[in-house]
Amino acid sequence: MHNLFVNGRFCKDPKLANADDFYASGFNVSGMPTPTNLGFSVNALNVNRMPGLNTLGISMARADLEPFGLISPHIHPRATELILVLEGTIYVGFVVPDTRNPFKSRLFDKILHPGDAFVIPQSMVHIQYNLGTTNATHLSSFNSQNPGVHVISYQLFGSNPPILDDVLVKGFQLDKKVVDHLRAQFSSKS
Amino acid sequence: MHNLFVNGRFCKDPKLANADDFYASGFNVSGMPTPTNLGFSVNALNVNRMPGLNTLGISMARADLEPFGLISPHIHPRATELILVLEGTIYVGFVVPDTRNPFKSRLFDKILHPGDAFVIPQSMVHIQYNLGTTNATHLSSFNSQNPGVHVISYQLFGSNPPILDDVLVKGFQLDKKVVDHLRAQFSSKS
Amino acid sequence: MHNLFVNGRFCKDPKLANADDFYASGFNVSGMPTPTNLGFSVNALNVNRMPGLNTLGISMARADLEPFGLISPHIHPRATELILVLEGTIYVGFVVPDTRNPFKSRLFDKILHPGDAFVIPQSMVHIQYNLGTTNATHLSSFNSQNPGVHVISYQLFGSNPPILDDVLVKGFQLDKKVVDHLRAQFSSKS
Amino acid sequence: MHNLFVNGRFCKDPKLANADDFYASGFNVSGMPTPTNLGFSVNALNVNRMPGLNTLGISMARADLEPFGLISPHIHPRATELILVLEGTIYVGFVVPDTRNPFKSRLFDKILHPGDAFVIPQSMVHIQYNLGTTNATHLSSFNSQNPGVHVISYQLFGSNPPILDDVLVKGFQLDKKVVDHLRAQFSSKS
Amino acid sequence: MHNLFVNGRFCKDPKLANADDFYASGFNVSGMPTPTNLGFSVNALNVNRMPGLNTLGISMARADLEPFGLISPHIHPRATELILVLEGTIYVGFVVPDTRNPFKSRLFDKILHPGDAFVIPQSMVHIQYNLGTTNATHLSSFNSQNPGVHVISYQLFGSNPPILDDVLVKGFQLDKKVVDHLRAQFSSKS
Amino acid sequence: MHNLFVNGRFCKDPKLANADDFYASGFNVSGMPTPTNLGFSVNALNVNRMPGLNTLGISMARADLEPFGLISPHIHPRATELILVLEGTIYVGFVVPDTRNPFKSRLFDKILHPGDAFVIPQSMVHIQYNLGTTNATHLSSFNSQNPGVHVISYQLFGSNPPILDDVLVKGFQLDKKVVDHLRAQFSSKS
Repeated sequence: MHNLFVNGRFCKDPKLANADDFYASGFNVSGMPTPTNLGFSVNALNVNRMPGLNTLGISMARADLEPFGLISPHIHPRATELILVLEGTIYVGFVVPDTRNPFKSRLFDKILHPGDAFVIPQSMVHIQYNLGTTNATHLSSFNSQNPGVHVISYQLFGSNPPILDDVLVKGFQLDKKVVDHLRAQFSSKS
Repeated sequence: MHNLFVNGRFCKDPKLANADDFYASGFNVSGMPTPTNLGFSVNALNVNRMPGLNTLGISMARADLEPFGLISPHIHPRATELILVLEGTIYVGFVVPDTRNPFKSRLFDKILHPGDAFVIPQSMVHIQYNLGTTNATHLSSFNSQNPGVHVISYQLFGSNPPILDDVLVKGFQLDKKVVDHLRAQFSSKS
Repeated sequence: MHNLFVNGRFCKDPKLANADDFYASGFNVSGMPTPTNLGFSVNALNVNRMPGLNTLGISMARADLEPFGLISPHIHPRATELILVLEGTIYVGFVVPDTRNPFKSRLFDKILHPGDAFVIPQSMVHIQYNLGTTNATHLSSFNSQNPGVHVISYQLFGSNPPILDDVLVKGFQLDKKVVDHLRAQFSSKS
Repeated sequence: MHNLFVNGRFCKDPKLANADDFYASGFNVSGMPTPTNLGFSVNALNVNRMPGLNTLGISMARADLEPFGLISPHIHPRATELILVLEGTIYVGFVVPDTRNPFKSRLFDKILHPGDAFVIPQSMVHIQYNLGTTNATHLSSFNSQNPGVHVISYQLFGSNPPILDDVLVKGFQLDKKVVDHLRAQFSSKS
Repeated sequence: MHNLFVNGRFCKDPKLANADDFYASGFNVSGMPTPTNLGFSVNALNVNRMPGLNTLGISMARADLEPFGLISPHIHPRATELILVLEGTIYVGFVVPDTRNPFKSRLFDKILHPGDAFVIPQSMVHIQYNLGTTNATHLSSFNSQNPGVHVISYQLFGSNPPILDDVLVKGFQLDKKVVDHLRAQFSSKS
Repeated sequence: MHNLFVNGRFCKDPKLANADDFYASGFNVSGMPTPTNLGFSVNALNVNRMPGLNTLGISMARADLEPFGLISPHIHPRATELILVLEGTIYVGFVVPDTRNPFKSRLFDKILHPGDAFVIPQSMVHIQYNLGTTNATHLSSFNSQNPGVHVISYQLFGSNPPILDDVLVKGFQLDKKVVDHLRAQFSSKS
């Protein structure tokens, strides 16, 4: 049975479900720091933590950023993200393509304080950056139980196997040395 | 043009949209107290506050409950609600019908502390109740830009025009006097 | 295999499907009276009776109401209901919340005769009541193979375990005695 | 404003909506006979008759068949149809393609009596035929407010302009004379 | 496990998925000729050829038509088809019902040359016909991984068991002899 | 009226629609070269070229790549892309995040020859690269009438206003000089 997969998760026998399936805890503290040196941690409230989210189309996350901590450019392929700042000063922005010319785009950005909210439409490249000298925290709501996250730097320069040298050199007009440097930063060691 | 309605809202000219359309503020404080005497207030982050939510399928709200404040039994007809407690002690529960016998049901309930989360599937009757002697606050995420809220007591006993006496007397096995009492509580004065 | 659940039902091997999977009978007569004393019965044409409805997003039901029989306030969390009266005189109504003030609402109601139809949008609180002195029958169409039914009285006062006393007393501004009375009416014995 | 079209219909100002928008009447009698000589009439309960159906994804119809009346092969491109027989004896069937070989198919058919039900999955070719010597009536539920109907004979042989002779002669292996005969039957005079 | 079916296909263990699951080949040549004598072949790029299409909602096909080859009237019940001509001259058309009178319809047709495109909305009866004296080829895109195909002639006259004689004779105003002739053409031998 | 926007496009009056609305031409030749120096052009078959695609959820494009032409890393936020090679040798790949660790990912890549196909799930970062010394051409199908395209390099380094220096320097671990170089490459002049 453990070899069998569906789109999403199998469901629990409804007769055996109980309140604990719809409950999770531990979101009053930050998550484990990420293995990056970017100074942030994420505490994700998703179907792994709360089984009852399966099929419900919703999840949340808490993000904590050290001073100048950065959640570098990334996208969520399956969800819109609605951000609410609890503490600190967070710069947010997303890139809006020109629908008629994909080689032009606008940045929609904002400096957020506690109680401020900002929404990132599904699949838009965006960033969160702690502009202040104190810790900052925001909550995020997602309209998927499985929003996904694609961190651009790790996807471009850290995949296994790597993207072809020529693609990166030509695509970003970079020296091969810079590409090597980027790969050294973002490739997974293990 | 102001006589014209679509399902949802009309969109802004994309060329004129800017970051402010995706921004809202003021969620670090409680909303206006509700006109009920139940001791809670709601600060809703929806399409009225943030125009860019239109068509995005997501919204949030902040709820503040005084000691023993109660958000009485209600449903959200168009969204699942994911609750995260920021402060205080909140009792939450929703009623789960037996899918084969609608005259039986189970209550899934839980006492939540800061950092605890609970999910209420779409359209389920549910309540939030401040069990403690201090104020309590939770955030809620919804997977609709327009979740809706149907407060059972106000819907049953406060509609205009009222539901027929016979329906309420028979449907709840109540004396007409009790129905009159309930109407007096929940009818809108204005 | 009987321990495995998906969202909905598993499908039959298409090669083994036949006309009987898309057929059901017995809707020319009323269903079994409900265990309530409200004077109605429901004969449901759903996926349990017609396996081929699985995944098709449609179902029906026949409701029979004795004189003054009442289908007390309830909602269907996953479907809009389209009612067509076959016989008798049926009062129908649903409660429409004010989208800007959830403590105000309007009742949309109508007296229906044979050949009259009325639609109840998804998740709206509604009632059907036989105003006449003869039996009444209506058919209902639902745009889900699993519309669900939440009977408000049984959900509020009959759940297992019960909703906290304080919630019901405060939420409905009722004496504890009345709450006890209501529980006695709507709790399941078994 | 009357030159402006959206996908579906424009909505009424919610403040002006009332119970009449969700009500329709006249389904206790048959509709106008169709201009065909096939012996049936349809009384459609759709958004033209009940404006409130707009966006709700549901509709109904009543069909009356004279003895040997036939609703000839047709499809509903946007809805599954759930049939319930009220009176008489109706033969129903739909054609199920072999998913691996489109040149083979199975017929799922059944003879229905009052109280019997049958479901036609979306877009399947199907027929209803009164096998008896008395009038027959069935109700149909659709999970779209706009199911559509494509009557195969009228579509193949009655379109304006007509489908090319060669297509019909070759596609159905028919003499040109038979095609002309069919066109004479199914072309619209007006 | 091979007795178990879901809506669509089971998924592969994501950890075992690789590039080959998202790859297929052989669409530079025509598919096997169909068992009809209509002079066309289809090379389908669907979930059977490319397992990774499961749940993705897209597929393609290549169609090759001999001179005067005809893909006779058919529908795709679960997808819109977007046609792009690679070679030759292809006549295409689909039948558009009058939404208020199903016994009238319009034909939208066009003669396509290499580089021309035409779209067939979901479930519309349509045809492709090689008007030229050389081979013709088009590609088709579908917005479903399982578009389905219902060939009208084979569905009406070749199903197993057959549609009742009376239905076909009356529905198409044909002699029983012509119906027998049509059955002989379109029934499957095996 | 030209100030009014809906989600998608307004529809044409159905009575005025004709075959030309469902037709487009010119896809047998390459599109205009892009303003990049990457050596490719795109000829897009979308709702701007074929108005009838509005609401249909499908579109196509033809891409032509010079020798060593590169469609640099990009995503389509609203569609899965199904690629079919018509001519030449094209290297394709997309990056698959590890769903439990967003700082690790796999590359699924393949070298495609004429008649080969490859599918890119919605919102995945991907590239197409002409590995050969001759021109290469592929067609792409999308399951949206408006797939969108976000070219990573232009979004990160060419937006107006630009993304903060600190975000790019820290996020990609690059010297400010390299960031300036990248901005010079990808910023729009006009």
